[in-house]
Amino acid sequence: MKEVKVSVIGFGTVGAGVVDILLGNADVIATRTGVVLKLTRIADLDIKRDRGVKVPDGVLTTDSTEAIEAADVVIELIGGTTIARKIILQALNAGKSVVTANKALLAHYGAELFEAARKNGVDLFYEASVGGGIPIIKALREGLAANRINRICGILNGTCNYILTRMENEHADFASVLADAQKLGYAEANPSLDIDGFDTAHKTVILASLACGRWFGMDDVHVEGINGLDSRDIEYAAKAGYRIKLLGIIKNINGAIQMRVHPTLVATDSMIANISDVFNGVMVEGDMVGRTLFYGRGAGRQATASAVVADIIDIGRNLIYGTSQRVPCFKEGQLYERLSPMDEIESRYYLRFTVDDCPGVVAGISKILSEHSISIASLIQEEHTDADGSVPLVVLTHPASEKEMKQALEKIGAMPFNRAPVRLLRIETI
Amino acid sequence: MKEVKVSVIGFGTVGAGVVDILLGNADVIATRTGVVLKLTRIADLDIKRDRGVKVPDGVLTTDSTEAIEAADVVIELIGGTTIARKIILQALNAGKSVVTANKALLAHYGAELFEAARKNGVDLFYEASVGGGIPIIKALREGLAANRINRICGILNGTCNYILTRMENEHADFASVLADAQKLGYAEANPSLDIDGFDTAHKTVILASLACGRWFGMDDVHVEGINGLDSRDIEYAAKAGYRIKLLGIIKNINGAIQMRVHPTLVATDSMIANISDVFNGVMVEGDMVGRTLFYGRGAGRQATASAVVADIIDIGRNLIYGTSQRVPCFKEGQLYERLSPMDEIESRYYLRFTVDDCPGVVAGISKILSEHSISIASLIQEEHTDADGSVPLVVLTHPASEKEMKQALEKIGAMPFNRAPVRLLRIETI
Repeated sequence: MKEVKVSVIGFGTVGAGVVDILLGNADVIATRTGVVLKLTRIADLDIKRDRGVKVPDGVLTTDSTEAIEAADVVIELIGGTTIARKIILQALNAGKSVVTANKALLAHYGAELFEAARKNGVDLFYEASVGGGIPIIKALREGLAANRINRICGILNGTCNYILTRMENEHADFASVLADAQKLGYAEANPSLDIDGFDTAHKTVILASLACGRWFGMDDVHVEGINGLDSRDIEYAAKAGYRIKLLGIIKNINGAIQMRVHPTLVATDSMIANISDVFNGVMVEGDMVGRTLFYGRGAGRQATASAVVADIIDIGRNLIYGTSQRVPCFKEGQLYERLSPMDEIESRYYLRFTVDDCPGVVAGISKILSEHSISIASLIQEEHTDADGSVPLVVLTHPASEKEMKQALEKIGAMPFNRAPVRLLRIETI
Repeated sequence: MKEVKVSVIGFGTVGAGVVDILLGNADVIATRTGVVLKLTRIADLDIKRDRGVKVPDGVLTTDSTEAIEAADVVIELIGGTTIARKIILQALNAGKSVVTANKALLAHYGAELFEAARKNGVDLFYEASVGGGIPIIKALREGLAANRINRICGILNGTCNYILTRMENEHADFASVLADAQKLGYAEANPSLDIDGFDTAHKTVILASLACGRWFGMDDVHVEGINGLDSRDIEYAAKAGYRIKLLGIIKNINGAIQMRVHPTLVATDSMIANISDVFNGVMVEGDMVGRTLFYGRGAGRQATASAVVADIIDIGRNLIYGTSQRVPCFKEGQLYERLSPMDEIESRYYLRFTVDDCPGVVAGISKILSEHSISIASLIQEEHTDADGSVPLVVLTHPASEKEMKQALEKIGAMPFNRAPVRLLRIETI
C-alpha cells in the first residue's frame, strides 16, 4: 500500500469536512480501497479559527505554494474564480493532480484547466461540483458510458429546492421564505447566485459538457431563476397535478442540444417531484439504460466532502498504478451536432393570465393559441375575483413550439382584457 | 486507441442486448472513453434462432472454449450456477477478464471466483448483477468509498415490485396479479426465485459483502418473500400512510450486521415508496454522505446490457493501461464485527390480528405487548365484521425487539379469541 499525500487548500466548511474524513475514516478507506491517504498540509489565510476538527501538528500553513509542493494531490476548496484558478494551474503545472468542488470556476474556465491537466499528465477531478455527495459525474463518465445521453433533468441547487418545498408546504410567498432561509443559513446573504439560477446553470454546463463531449460555457445555457416566483403558480400547479422545481434541463433531440435552467412543472407522482428540501436529484436518460435517477444531499460539509474524498481515492489509485488520466477529466469528442436556440425548443406550457371578468376572454385567448398551433390540454378558471376585479385564468398546453408561443403571447398580451403580464412556465414530462 | 476483443457467451435476452450495444454504440463508446470494443465471438448452443440483431459473419459459434481463446474479455450470460461457473473459471484461468450478471452464482460461489480472478491477475466485474442498469456497485466501491456504510435498503426485484404496484393500484389479490404478470412476461412460469425473495437475497448478499468487506453467503440472510401477501395488508398499510415493498435490508448497528429480505412498510411519501412497477432503487446511507438513492430499470435487455458494457469499458481501460485489479473485484477487509441473528434486531412492526368481535380483545393484546416492552404507535379497528364473524385489528408499534415480539405473539396466538394466525410485517423508516 502506497501512501498518498493530500494538501487541502481552503479550510472552510467543505475543507473541514474533507479533513474530518481524512482523519476519521482513513482506516475504512485503506481497508476498502487499499489506498492510504495522509493529510499533509491545510493551507488557509486564517489558520487560527476553530473549525471543530483536531488538526495534527505541523499541518496548518498560510503558504499555499508550500502546501502544493508537499502534496501528491491538491484539494482546491477556496471557491471563486480568481485565486482558485491560479492555485489549480500552479498545482497542475507542478505535476500535481487536483480535486475541486468549484462549479463556477469549471463552468467558466473548464477548458483551460483540463488542457493544463492533460498537458501535465495529471488528473483534475470534480465529482463534488455537481450534486454534492451524489456520485453523478462518475455515473455519467463510467457507469453509463455505454449510452448516448438523450436527456438530463436535475434539481441541482439545494437552496432553491428548500425554498420551493417550503412555499408549497406552507402556502407561503417567496420573499418571506427566502428571508427565513437566510436566517436559518440555508440561503446566502446575497442569494442571487442560487435564486437567479446561475449556480444551477454552472452545474448544467458541467453535466451537458460531459454528455456532449464539448466543454460549454455559460453563454450556451438559457437561465431563469425562481426569484419572485408567485405562490399562486405553485397552488395552481398543484391543482393540476404538478409541482414546481428549478430544473437544469439538457436534451439531445437528433443531435441538437437544448441547455436550459428554469422553474418547471413536473407531475406530482414523478420521482423528481418527490425530491424535497435541500436534497438534489439528477435524472439521466440514456438510449440503452432508459431512465435513471441519482439522489442525495446536494451540499453540506460532510456530503460534499464524501465526493471530494472519492476523487482523492480515484487519484490515489492512479498514482499507485501510474495511470493518471486513465479516465480523462474531460474527453473531447463531439457527441452532438449543434446547440438549439430557445426559439427552437418544444415544450408543454403553463400559462397564467390575469384578465377582466368579461365575455370573450377565453374565446380570444384560445383563438390566438390555436392560430399558432398551440393546443390546450386543460384550463382552470375558478369562480374567484381578485381584489382589483381581475380573474386568473390558467391554461396548460400540449407540446408546442417556443417560437409560436412567444408570438401568440405577444398578440394575447396586446388584447385589452389583460390586467397583468402573462406568466409562462414550462412543463417537463419525467 | 487499443481494440478490446469481446466474446459474449450466452446469446439470450441480455446477451442480445450486449451485442446490440457493442454493434450500435461502438462509436459513442470510442468517442466518450477512447476504448474501442470489438465483438469477436458469440457462443451459444443455439446459433440459429433469430434474436433480432444482425450479427457479423464468423462471430457465432457453439464452441465456448474457442470464444474464450479469441477474447480479451469474456462476458458470461448463460445464467445458472453449473456451466456458468465452469466457464468463468476456465476464462479466468486462461488469463481473461470476465464480466457477469449472474447474481445467483456470485451469491453462492463469489469467494471462489474472486480468488481465481486475483490469482490470475485479471478482473471479474458484475455491475449488472444488482439493480440492472443502475451503476450501484461502482457507487458502493468507488463513488461512496469514503464512507462507512450504515444502511442499505433496496427494491431489487422488478417482478415483485410490479406485482406489489398492481396489487395496490388495482386492489387486486396476489394470485390474480401473479397470473397476469406471468401472461405478460413480467414473471417466470416458475416464479419462486422472485416471489419467495431468493433473487432479492442474492443481490442483498452482494451489496452486503461489498459494504462489509467479507463475501457472505445465502445462509447469512433472513428471507421472506411476497408469496401469498394478503391485499388487505396493502390496504391497511395505505390507511396508515405506508406502502408495502419487498426490501433487501442491510444494517450496520455498531459493527453488528443485519441482512434480511422481507415485505416492508415504508412511508408513502418516502422516495423508495414511489419506486413503482418494474423499476429498482437502492438507498445507501453512508456516515458522511448521508442518504443517497439510485434508481432505474432493474432488468430488461438494454438496461442490463448497459451495465455489462460499462464493466467491459472499465476492463478495457485496465487492459489499455495494464492495470487489471486497480479496483479489485472484491476487496477483503473486515468492516464489521459480527452478524446479528434475527432475534437481535429491532424494528417497528405492523400486526394484523383476526379476532372475535367480543369484549377484552384489545385489552388482552395490549397487555401482553406491554409486558414485552412493545409500545403501540397506532391501532386500526374498523366497524366491520368478516363473513365468518371475525374482525381485523391492526396494530403498528414503536421500535421493539424481534425476540420480545416473537414471545408476545406466541402468547397472544394462544388466546381463545384468535380466528386466524397473526400477520406480522416490519416497518422501515427511510
